[in-house]
Amino acid sequence: MAGGRDELKLLGTWTSPFVIRVKLALSFKGLSYENVEEDLYYNKSELLLKSNPVHKKVPVLLHNGKPVCESQLIVQYIDEAFSTEAPSLLPVEPSERAMARFWAAYIDDKLFASAFRAGRAKTEEEQAEALKETFAAVETLEAAFKECSKGKPFFGGDSVGYLDIVLGVLIPLVYVGKARYGIKLFDDTRSPLLEAWVERFGALDATKAILPEVDKLIVEYSKAKQARAAAMSAAASN
Amino acid sequence: MAGGRDELKLLGTWTSPFVIRVKLALSFKGLSYENVEEDLYYNKSELLLKSNPVHKKVPVLLHNGKPVCESQLIVQYIDEAFSTEAPSLLPVEPSERAMARFWAAYIDDKLFASAFRAGRAKTEEEQAEALKETFAAVETLEAAFKECSKGKPFFGGDSVGYLDIVLGVLIPLVYVGKARYGIKLFDDTRSPLLEAWVERFGALDATKAILPEVDKLIVEYSKAKQARAAAMSAAASN
Repeated sequence: MAGGRDELKLLGTWTSPFVIRVKLALSFKGLSYENVEEDLYYNKSELLLKSNPVHKKVPVLLHNGKPVCESQLIVQYIDEAFSTEAPSLLPVEPSERAMARFWAAYIDDKLFASAFRAGRAKTEEEQAEALKETFAAVETLEAAFKECSKGKPFFGGDSVGYLDIVLGVLIPLVYVGKARYGIKLFDDTRSPLLEAWVERFGALDATKAILPEVDKLIVEYSKAKQARAAAMSAAASN
Repeated sequence: MAGGRDELKLLGTWTSPFVIRVKLALSFKGLSYENVEEDLYYNKSELLLKSNPVHKKVPVLLHNGKPVCESQLIVQYIDEAFSTEAPSLLPVEPSERAMARFWAAYIDDKLFASAFRAGRAKTEEEQAEALKETFAAVETLEAAFKECSKGKPFFGGDSVGYLDIVLGVLIPLVYVGKARYGIKLFDDTRSPLLEAWVERFGALDATKAILPEVDKLIVEYSKAKQARAAAMSAAASN
């Protein structure tokens, strides 16, 4: 638990995978925090604009009033600032730390980027191309899991580590993709290790406490799609 | 100096800012290494393809045969693996470490990305737009320098730190831009602190030992432009 002097406040939205990533890190570290829900479309808070003036994005973690931005950096920060709380998320050995950071960047820059592109594609062709890249990234990550976990249950080995948390936010999206589009991101042939990892990581108490319900997410993503369309249409008519 | 058991090999090209970044880190840490010049256009080495199968890019640092990829991650790796060699590049305090990583990402994702776009623009309009973004990023970084250096000479304070090395690779490009396009990236009105920092950081022995000569860079960048054009034309005719 955070000591009496530690005040943690998280600015986010409950649907954002990048915010959920930070919540997972806080959950595994057993840290309590105040959750502040932001309205990104119509009314970003003064605190958000002041805390992340460069990107004006969530998540922002305020630790005793000091802001930390960017989800991967926040998770690393939590690991360093609360290094006495188990588990240690980043590996100890420098080359393994570098490898964890390498795959974390890959997850956001390749896997998430192409999956989001698929979700927002305007044509079938565009969607097919983005899905192809997404599945290629899944295959690459299947090999990364083998390399990092060394036959153990998690990316972090015997216990959950940085990459489990970085990739873990994908789990609700896996179920949304299946329910909404009939797309199986992980399966027995392409990614049997990751398929099993999704079950294993998703079943942990610290994960279940955080990951949002799939049905609610589906409703919310539809609303967000409408809000984006409305904002674009308003911008076009101005 | 790296101990007798430490073998460091750097795969790179002498013109790449991202390779120069790693060389700067090695130089400031006083580490000796074997430099392997790669031919990225026509003949990537087997060692490069084996060491960075995901991105197939330089730089790659091999430490006792183990590869580390991505320039920012390599610099962090060098700092962690050779933590007993002064100076320490990343700050000690977790929130300052997070801030250093935040601005490092900004330098690559915003400043470098827009500067490279300006250098490779195909129309005047495209170039003007990219330059506008570049100058906006410079202004933001001027404020970042003030925040990080706290009135001291370097991003790292009294001694050179992570951000000095991450941004330092820009120095030859500043002179290339001035000589080739008459563009002053830093100046007294927009960025007086960074203007002075360029002189200060560029004058250090560990920097001077690494940064390539501007005249040679200009010749090489022209060759690279022709090689890109030839490669594109060859691809188009196949």
